[in-house]
Amino acid sequence: MEFKAPRGQEISCKGWQQEAVLRMLLNNLDSEVAEKPEELIVYGGTGKAARNLESFEAIVSTLKNLENDETMLVQSGKPVAVFKTHTFAPRVLIANSLLVPAWADWDSFWDLEKKGLTMYGQMTAGSWIYIGTQGILQGTYETFAEAAKQHFSNDLTGKIVLTAGVGGMGGAQPLAVTMNNGVAIAVDVDEERIKRRVNTRYCDKITHDLEECLSWAREAADKGEPLSIGLVGNAAEIYPQLIEKGITPDVVTDQTSAHDPLGGYVPANMTLKEAEELRKKDPEKYIHLSKSSMADHVKAMLKMQEKGAVVFDYGNNIRQFAKEYGVKNAFDFPGFVPAYIRPQFCEGRGPFRWVALSGDPKDIEETDKLVKEMFPEQERLTRWIDMASEMVEFQGLPSRICWLGYGERAKLGLAFNKLVKEGKVKGPIVIGRDHLDCGSVASPNRETEGMKDGSDAIADWPILNALINSVSGASWVSVHHGGGVGIGYSMHAGMVVVADGTEEAEKRLETVLTTDPGMGVVRHVDAGYQKAVDHAIKHGVKIPMLKK
Amino acid sequence: MEFKAPRGQEISCKGWQQEAVLRMLLNNLDSEVAEKPEELIVYGGTGKAARNLESFEAIVSTLKNLENDETMLVQSGKPVAVFKTHTFAPRVLIANSLLVPAWADWDSFWDLEKKGLTMYGQMTAGSWIYIGTQGILQGTYETFAEAAKQHFSNDLTGKIVLTAGVGGMGGAQPLAVTMNNGVAIAVDVDEERIKRRVNTRYCDKITHDLEECLSWAREAADKGEPLSIGLVGNAAEIYPQLIEKGITPDVVTDQTSAHDPLGGYVPANMTLKEAEELRKKDPEKYIHLSKSSMADHVKAMLKMQEKGAVVFDYGNNIRQFAKEYGVKNAFDFPGFVPAYIRPQFCEGRGPFRWVALSGDPKDIEETDKLVKEMFPEQERLTRWIDMASEMVEFQGLPSRICWLGYGERAKLGLAFNKLVKEGKVKGPIVIGRDHLDCGSVASPNRETEGMKDGSDAIADWPILNALINSVSGASWVSVHHGGGVGIGYSMHAGMVVVADGTEEAEKRLETVLTTDPGMGVVRHVDAGYQKAVDHAIKHGVKIPMLKK
Ligand SMILES: NC(=O)c1ccc[n+]([C@@H]2O[C@H](COP(=O)([O-])OP(=O)(O)OC[C@H]3O[C@@H](n4cnc5c(N)ncnc54)[C@H](O)[C@@H]3O)[C@@H](O)[C@H]2O)c1
Ligand SMILES: NC(=O)c1ccc[n+]([C@@H]2O[C@H](COP(=O)([O-])OP(=O)(O)OC[C@H]3O[C@@H](n4cnc5c(N)ncnc54)[C@H](O)[C@@H]3O)[C@@H](O)[C@H]2O)c1
Repeated sequence: MEFKAPRGQEISCKGWQQEAVLRMLLNNLDSEVAEKPEELIVYGGTGKAARNLESFEAIVSTLKNLENDETMLVQSGKPVAVFKTHTFAPRVLIANSLLVPAWADWDSFWDLEKKGLTMYGQMTAGSWIYIGTQGILQGTYETFAEAAKQHFSNDLTGKIVLTAGVGGMGGAQPLAVTMNNGVAIAVDVDEERIKRRVNTRYCDKITHDLEECLSWAREAADKGEPLSIGLVGNAAEIYPQLIEKGITPDVVTDQTSAHDPLGGYVPANMTLKEAEELRKKDPEKYIHLSKSSMADHVKAMLKMQEKGAVVFDYGNNIRQFAKEYGVKNAFDFPGFVPAYIRPQFCEGRGPFRWVALSGDPKDIEETDKLVKEMFPEQERLTRWIDMASEMVEFQGLPSRICWLGYGERAKLGLAFNKLVKEGKVKGPIVIGRDHLDCGSVASPNRETEGMKDGSDAIADWPILNALINSVSGASWVSVHHGGGVGIGYSMHAGMVVVADGTEEAEKRLETVLTTDPGMGVVRHVDAGYQKAVDHAIKHGVKIPMLKK
Repeated sequence: MEFKAPRGQEISCKGWQQEAVLRMLLNNLDSEVAEKPEELIVYGGTGKAARNLESFEAIVSTLKNLENDETMLVQSGKPVAVFKTHTFAPRVLIANSLLVPAWADWDSFWDLEKKGLTMYGQMTAGSWIYIGTQGILQGTYETFAEAAKQHFSNDLTGKIVLTAGVGGMGGAQPLAVTMNNGVAIAVDVDEERIKRRVNTRYCDKITHDLEECLSWAREAADKGEPLSIGLVGNAAEIYPQLIEKGITPDVVTDQTSAHDPLGGYVPANMTLKEAEELRKKDPEKYIHLSKSSMADHVKAMLKMQEKGAVVFDYGNNIRQFAKEYGVKNAFDFPGFVPAYIRPQFCEGRGPFRWVALSGDPKDIEETDKLVKEMFPEQERLTRWIDMASEMVEFQGLPSRICWLGYGERAKLGLAFNKLVKEGKVKGPIVIGRDHLDCGSVASPNRETEGMKDGSDAIADWPILNALINSVSGASWVSVHHGGGVGIGYSMHAGMVVVADGTEEAEKRLETVLTTDPGMGVVRHVDAGYQKAVDHAIKHGVKIPMLKK
């Protein structure tokens, strides 16, 4: 079975809203996009687009027959009903992987999955708005950009960023740093991983030699030129060596797979082959060595912080293991969410994405141009668009992602609709986002960790987000459980809206692209973030109990 | 503070949709309705209508200013936002008590509640459509009526029903049996409880003497006359005595507080005073005696079943404790949900209720008359309406409840709207339901226990229910967690719609009173109930993968 979204103007559904759903579902399973299309798996381990082939086919044929005033309901990847609603309603409503909390663990989940009763939807897999790896690059870019904004003069020119791990996620780091005009030193114990990144132009150079690496880095930084260097080595050795040499990078973080002390992280003073052997022979010893290496690794990071570096944890749980192994002040440097993501969430900023349904890359060129015209003052955004259009290869239908805030999203959505209406692009544009957004996720180990008021586990917010978006013009809306951090640990909602050039789409876009990021502002106002309060007041977001 | 819904035609909001919300919120807290209005507690232990007084006041003032194209969002009893939506959207969207599953336990809940971040919403407490105890009476009536339908000729004339426990819930049993024209023997160890029921006309007679009780019962049954008798005694003694006497009632159940072996159930051969003392002195021994009495109690029920009685468990967990104490076949008789409630859920039947916003009891008289006119063939319904109008004292705004199915609800809703439009009632009518309904609850220990396909814990359904109702014209929609069975054990959704006599209301009623019970049919089709499949086919419910 080969999945591929149809391109062009001709549609096989009764309207563009439905056709958009159909194309995005097929695009999610396109072999350029999906990890294992033959199993309907899109990304994130086992995140699926439909429960099984039979359900997939039923979704497709239901979409083709769906009237413009009907709504299809999808329960964990299976179409279960079609109801008459009205034209402005979403064409599809989705609930994936939700379990009554006392049964919300992986064992119960797999048991129900085996019975054919549910499906793991991850975030954008089961809600049909995944666009490939561009999202990771953009998220990483945004994190470094925000760090630059908070600590330097808005970009990383002349700054050296030290990090480690260039695997699936971490591999975006070297490029994300150079896109911010900085110099990256990315340590990875696995030479092959670095080579792959050099081959795909995500990393500029590779070396085994620390001295060589440092001299390249210094030279580039002095000249103010962007450069990324993959240094083959173990972070638990390299970071302490830098301390010994008295070298303090400007920014320090880490994306080794420290969350997994046995299968992921490689202890110091060991070849990859030795590590492989010890894992099998003596897993307990391996874990012990792994965690004590993490302790050294984190100690070095703390030392660099002491000496003035900007240090943050990149969500791999390394602080926790270091603490377990005696580093009492491991949590002295912050996680990336409270440090760099949350301040943006306070302004309703988050990962906004769009897709050209025509299939023509020129449509995305048009939108790129428009974004730059509309927000010329946002240097960070302009830089991203320029770099992305040069560096990012499309997977499946051409798409773009960037972070935008409350106010900006609605403005851009309406402008896209105008592009479509005036024929400046060759087909409608689908606008969506990750479930990981400002007002749509409750995930106490990641996105809502350490909320100011302690409301990390309150899950009313994603539900309110889904409800308000459903009545505000979204084309499809989804509520999921367990994305990102696994069953039991998160609840979140997705939203997609189609700019098809009609007046109705105009109303949809204006309303839902206000309520959706609006929920981000509201959620952070409620948690007591002054930045959100200021933003709400400035933009006139109506909050009944707002205290100024 | 005194809470009382305004009556009459004059409104203080910008439309009847908003005014209806306001009146129902105030009505929930009316001292005739609420258990502890001063703490904002409506019912069900700690089920609240608003987070605190400040939030309550903010809700009221927000409602008064809410435009006809705006929607207020309420997060666990606190108003957090107002967004511009459109006229057909709900005026209020509510999410109460939701927690990320791994934190969904009472400890975490109370901790967050103490911080002022959440509220326990129960079912209709936090969604403003509680109407007092009429609902319990009706639910009990419906259970016995369904038993009569399945096993006898549609009512209980000439049949003797044996039960026990006439407390808060169980006290509805004697009246529910006589409303079905049967003879009830209701055993309770506490004389006072029976006396209270006699005083409020829920029970006809009281006796301490088993022989007397039996002769009254036999006489009434022979004459085919309804009669309810409260027998003072311990069920764990009386039930076995009946076996010894060779007496087999037609129907046998039990609503003693067996779910609580220490604080609730009273062991055999003990006065209430002795029980009270032993509870304190030696709780372990008390529990032991309690559970072994339950074993005897259940053994007697099983024996009666063997001899031909219709026996069922009424949701008090007595089978579980009996099994623990050696009664291996305790689960040989069914629970009331799979036996009598689920067959109705398959047809989209469930607890439909309405309230006269005028405050005039005559409006309910009008609606009672109309219901009887519209469904003359439903003898069960007619009987209920007649008995209810005679026996039920209104609490707060006049209201009525009855069970109606898919198709019937929309039909009646439209007829109510016509009554309002034509001035046959003095004000709009609010239509809602319990969250315990056919397509709106996932609660594996109660409403969704023992689903045919094992899907008890799948919680996609209540979310889909809330989403589709939100876009189908509901006036307010709510999603809750933990109602009925406590935090961690259920997820459920509520729906209310206002018949204000307008054309828009007509569209709202027709659409949402179709989608809402429609979800019940769909959910049970998906679980493999043939009855639901037949109903879906008969009524043309659109189900993409329906296998006939
Ligand atoms: N919080 C978030 O949103 C977020 C986002 C991205 C990644 N992460 C975390 O970041 C980590 C990396 O994710 P990934 O998908 O890139 O993992 P991955 O397994 O694909 O890559 C990890 C890389 O680390 C290298 N490595 C392991 N031990 C090392 C050591 N001691 N020194 C140097 N290199 C070492 C490996 O060779 C590998 O290339 C994970 O822990 C992940 O959970 C979190
Ligand atoms: N599944 C459901 O939807 C559902 C509905 C209603 C009630 N219930 C269950 O039914 C039970 C009763 O609820 P309630 O609110 O009426 O409780 P309650 O505590 O108000 O009343 C229980 C009554 O049982 C009597 N009793 C206790 N032990 C007895 C014994 N051995 N013999 C005779 N009488 C005895 C008490 O004196 C009391 O009057 C509870 O377990 C409740 O959970 C379940």
